[in-house]
Amino acid sequence: MTPRINRQIVLARRPLGDVAPDDFEHVTAPVRDLAPGEFLVQNRWLSIDPYMRVRMNEARSYAPPQPLGEVMGGTTAGDVVASRHAGFSVGDRVVGLGGWQLYAIDSGAAFVKIATSAIPLPAFLGVAGMPGITAWYGMRRIIVPKAGETVVVSAASGAVGSVAGQLAKLEGCRVIGIAGGREKCSHVTNDLGFDHCIDYKAGNLDAQLAAMAPGGIDGYFDNVGGVVLDAVMRRLNTFARVAVCGQISGGYDTSPLPLADTGMFLTARFTMRGFIISDHRDAWPEARAELMRLIAEGRLTYRQTVAEGIEAAPAALINLLKGANVGKQLVQLD
Amino acid sequence: MTPRINRQIVLARRPLGDVAPDDFEHVTAPVRDLAPGEFLVQNRWLSIDPYMRVRMNEARSYAPPQPLGEVMGGTTAGDVVASRHAGFSVGDRVVGLGGWQLYAIDSGAAFVKIATSAIPLPAFLGVAGMPGITAWYGMRRIIVPKAGETVVVSAASGAVGSVAGQLAKLEGCRVIGIAGGREKCSHVTNDLGFDHCIDYKAGNLDAQLAAMAPGGIDGYFDNVGGVVLDAVMRRLNTFARVAVCGQISGGYDTSPLPLADTGMFLTARFTMRGFIISDHRDAWPEARAELMRLIAEGRLTYRQTVAEGIEAAPAALINLLKGANVGKQLVQLD
Repeated sequence: MTPRINRQIVLARRPLGDVAPDDFEHVTAPVRDLAPGEFLVQNRWLSIDPYMRVRMNEARSYAPPQPLGEVMGGTTAGDVVASRHAGFSVGDRVVGLGGWQLYAIDSGAAFVKIATSAIPLPAFLGVAGMPGITAWYGMRRIIVPKAGETVVVSAASGAVGSVAGQLAKLEGCRVIGIAGGREKCSHVTNDLGFDHCIDYKAGNLDAQLAAMAPGGIDGYFDNVGGVVLDAVMRRLNTFARVAVCGQISGGYDTSPLPLADTGMFLTARFTMRGFIISDHRDAWPEARAELMRLIAEGRLTYRQTVAEGIEAAPAALINLLKGANVGKQLVQLD
Repeated sequence: MTPRINRQIVLARRPLGDVAPDDFEHVTAPVRDLAPGEFLVQNRWLSIDPYMRVRMNEARSYAPPQPLGEVMGGTTAGDVVASRHAGFSVGDRVVGLGGWQLYAIDSGAAFVKIATSAIPLPAFLGVAGMPGITAWYGMRRIIVPKAGETVVVSAASGAVGSVAGQLAKLEGCRVIGIAGGREKCSHVTNDLGFDHCIDYKAGNLDAQLAAMAPGGIDGYFDNVGGVVLDAVMRRLNTFARVAVCGQISGGYDTSPLPLADTGMFLTARFTMRGFIISDHRDAWPEARAELMRLIAEGRLTYRQTVAEGIEAAPAALINLLKGANVGKQLVQLD
């Protein structure tokens, strides 16, 4: 039998500033034979996420650096196409750390089986996957919004923000999104059902927040940091909760945050907590179950931006970091 | 019967910068007769606290401003010396919002009765009072230190910090105090039993923290904000907890906090929460009971700095704001 050919993308060098196509190298190699206990996954969809940019740096951050010369890490969804593992059979649909490549070999540590009868496969990389679960955790375990409260979500049209805001709406909150550009804002209010959306690119963020949150802000799901966080903090109500989830590079101004003193922490007695969803694996089953139920019931809307083919992955990441995507950024691999 | 003469101190003007003696006015007035349902308290001890400086400003902060021309607010401990209230009898010992004056009339809203059989009266203004309960709340409800963890406490020789650090020691933590001057630091390690104390006035805070907390910092009880908070944040471990309790004016450098980005919140996934103990009245009985038990058992050490006579109250506040006190700053009124 002719061996399957794997196409892979490896990290060729660490970017200085903006990510460039030449930071990556495209390589081809035959897929090796399976050892006992292994199975072969054909990756159908690759998830492109902001954390990938962080891992391209040498410095250790909340995730270990991506090694140079190795296949770029990333989550994929696909099919088991060969198996010598008792728990995985040809035809099983799986999601896991498949990387930027067409085929991945696993012995059960990287992939889990998923049920795609009610939810399409790529949704397990977005609304029912890590981004959706991230939104769920920030809302259900940190912000815990109550009906009638005002909740602000930045990067509101993105994979995480779009779910976070909808979860707050389902709790009966007044939800204000922040996004870049009129098109994204229109999506946030018209399709996702947020009450308002502020286009931060139009300037005047402070005045807009004052107008749209006249009673102050009780919860903030922060995907961006920087001056947006600062503007929101100035309007926090007593006992507000801030979930610090991300700090997407580019798209938003990430200039230093002038937290002038701790007086604001005392004046509003607010709580600010950073979190990384991989720390909270114990919450994933409950989160995924609730998200899948909401999707199946049509109560959770999502959009995907899809690039075609593994060769398009670097450009997809570059576009994501520029904020050019709406909703979940994916690469369709076949 | 000759009426009792009340001596009072009122706020004459709002300070511009440092508090000055002329910001206060000393007045004298006879104590009026009690109406039915009222009782008269002779204040024996007046508590001097950092929040008083905040209230002297016109701007609303975490506490409403002290009105001009009115008796300075403050907590006192004293004796009921006359009563037309069914629940309070002459000889009862009470603690409450008696203000900067020798006598206070109440109808039961401002004072509560206390038991001084095992705990001396002035301790109800410090270690068993608001400062001690503040320390208890920050440790028991926010930092929740575990044995073996490293906990840092700033203003470590003060009324709050001294109790906070001792509570962490009782949990089996490595406790590092930060205080101003060698004398205070010596008190913190020798009398209060902290493992280390850093004299921030000696400079070199970063290097000292690195040397004394080589494994990083798991909890920080912040009484000061500013550059000290910044230095501690740089060394926080994953899942650290920061309780923001105070920001004493003077004594510490309160220059802007260069929270350069939200990356640190993500890298360490820490939680930072501001709190004001008056928001948590429901926790006071449990807190006071535990503190009284620890004092009675000799497991909680405290020191007091005592000024003599109501006329000394302004100077006592000025000294407190300069950091000249060790432990709880009190004024003995008789």
